Amino acid sequence: MAPTLALVGATGAVGTVMIDIVNARESVPWGDIRLIASPRSAGKKIVVRGEERTVQALGPEAFDGVDVAMFDVPDEVSAQWAPIAAERGAVAVDNSGAFRMDPDVPLVVPEVNAGAIADRPRGIIANPNCTTLSMMAALGALHREFGLRELVVASYQAASGAGQAGVDRLYAELAAVGGKNVGVRAGDVREALAAAGLTDDSPFPAPLALNVVPWAGSLKQDGWASEELKVRNESRKILGIPDLRVSATCVRVPVVTTHALAVHATFEREVTVDGAHKVFAAQPSIVLQDDPAAGVFPTPADVVGNDPTYVGRVRQAVDFPNTLDFFVCGDNLRKGAALNTYEIAEVVAREFA
Amino acid sequence: MAPTLALVGATGAVGTVMIDIVNARESVPWGDIRLIASPRSAGKKIVVRGEERTVQALGPEAFDGVDVAMFDVPDEVSAQWAPIAAERGAVAVDNSGAFRMDPDVPLVVPEVNAGAIADRPRGIIANPNCTTLSMMAALGALHREFGLRELVVASYQAASGAGQAGVDRLYAELAAVGGKNVGVRAGDVREALAAAGLTDDSPFPAPLALNVVPWAGSLKQDGWASEELKVRNESRKILGIPDLRVSATCVRVPVVTTHALAVHATFEREVTVDGAHKVFAAQPSIVLQDDPAAGVFPTPADVVGNDPTYVGRVRQAVDFPNTLDFFVCGDNLRKGAALNTYEIAEVVAREFA
Repeated sequence: MAPTLALVGATGAVGTVMIDIVNARESVPWGDIRLIASPRSAGKKIVVRGEERTVQALGPEAFDGVDVAMFDVPDEVSAQWAPIAAERGAVAVDNSGAFRMDPDVPLVVPEVNAGAIADRPRGIIANPNCTTLSMMAALGALHREFGLRELVVASYQAASGAGQAGVDRLYAELAAVGGKNVGVRAGDVREALAAAGLTDDSPFPAPLALNVVPWAGSLKQDGWASEELKVRNESRKILGIPDLRVSATCVRVPVVTTHALAVHATFEREVTVDGAHKVFAAQPSIVLQDDPAAGVFPTPADVVGNDPTYVGRVRQAVDFPNTLDFFVCGDNLRKGAALNTYEIAEVVAREFA
Repeated sequence: MAPTLALVGATGAVGTVMIDIVNARESVPWGDIRLIASPRSAGKKIVVRGEERTVQALGPEAFDGVDVAMFDVPDEVSAQWAPIAAERGAVAVDNSGAFRMDPDVPLVVPEVNAGAIADRPRGIIANPNCTTLSMMAALGALHREFGLRELVVASYQAASGAGQAGVDRLYAELAAVGGKNVGVRAGDVREALAAAGLTDDSPFPAPLALNVVPWAGSLKQDGWASEELKVRNESRKILGIPDLRVSATCVRVPVVTTHALAVHATFEREVTVDGAHKVFAAQPSIVLQDDPAAGVFPTPADVVGNDPTYVGRVRQAVDFPNTLDFFVCGDNLRKGAALNTYEIAEVVAREFA
């Protein structure tokens, strides 16, 4: 019998993209599809694959009969409810940070480590952080061929990584500064925001319009931001390289959606630009855009809304052996969140075939 | 007798900042100050240190009696005229790319390698590229203490690095997209620019508003951009480390002025965050802003218009021995161009004392 899918957090930003993805699929392996959200959103009607469905309130009985439950809710909600869903017999695929580093929970990017899905003692599978995910298809493909050893990463992260509040704030800030010759002396961006009433409640710790902000997440040990340590720890777990050396600097930029990363990756074996191009071209989830003579390289504004990971600017490091520098862009709401979660769910669905 | 200073390119963007800097100095070591520009700007009157001066047309006789000539003009103009100034007895301090890698021309950041100024067989001293300069005070100070070996850099470069045309373009693009819910699907930024008539003539190879563009300069060998190779080659020359290993990825961001860089630097000797903080605090041209718990780190919008190099987010790399990750911001028009050029000129002026 075709399995039943539940979307928990169906009315949120990523949940909405999840429904878009389910609707856009040519065919789906699901029998019933159930929408679950907070009691506040319960009763809302949403059309999924041509059928109007009523959003149910989150509660233990909402998971009865569910085979696969995708969660996109805050960490603490996942921490409470994913185990309940699992207890009731569903496989929980969770996009929060609650379970990613749990040794009994696989952390999965299907084109990299789909095999890890089978070993899930808690009945929970975790979806990685969006920054890590934006480069994982590219790094997984290179690792299989050349053996990854070291990673130095600088991110160019979009406002929507901080949720709808981040997007709203960026637009409001741009309206306050745009085309007004602001940004030419220290503090004048802050003054323009203040004049527009944008003084507090920002999800960002500094102005984002006409600026970049070297901070994402919360403060962890020794000055590291949580997002930077996630890139390290999640990359190690997904790629199965427990001693992978990683340094990441995470920086927010005034882009709406799509994270970009400058990657400096060192391998066990010799690597060439041609060899890397072949690896990328062979990976269906990667689009290679690498012809700078013709102005061809990926940029967030040209990638947003698309499923694949876009790779360009592939260069052999001049001074570092076995090392490539490249630039990668991925939509943080799609492959970085909703799409990868759904791809995991589709792999699980095969168990019911 | 107090030496005579000439400003060549006095009416340009960087030339204007040069005049601001000369005017803001408490005292200057100069006798006469002469303004030189293209014949088109000749005759223009500009007040320098309380005295109105008439811009002279560039020509051999303009350098007669000049002791130090600062050049901020295109590469080909410098290539032609800096040697003529030197021939006529002036020391030429050049901010173009024409002479930077000439083995007979020192490439100088005064707080790093002022000693190199004495050895100038061609009578020309070069000022580094703005991206290199934005991190050089910080790296020079760390190198003296710990011995720099490797550098992996990703840049967040401002629009004014491409001149006034870059600034004008960024403002025009922001006016075309700002606060209009653009940036949510691939190509809609390009559509908004087209609708506003911003279809071509951009100094950037892709839209910069709501975007980041992984390209700066011209295409060099093996997919490298000229700006990326400048960072490598100029860092080696300034720091006096001919075998320094460098990889740079240069990315333009929608910021008006002030370049930022994420730096991953590996040293010969053990390095700690405390040790690095002490080094930065002891360098007068560096401002340390590193207290993320209090939201304190440098951002371009808070640094623009200031002379120092601002450093923050200093972290010991978790997996790389003797390695620091940090974030640095520097005004690309001041320390990155006009200020450093002027500081070199002031060092030369001491020879006349």
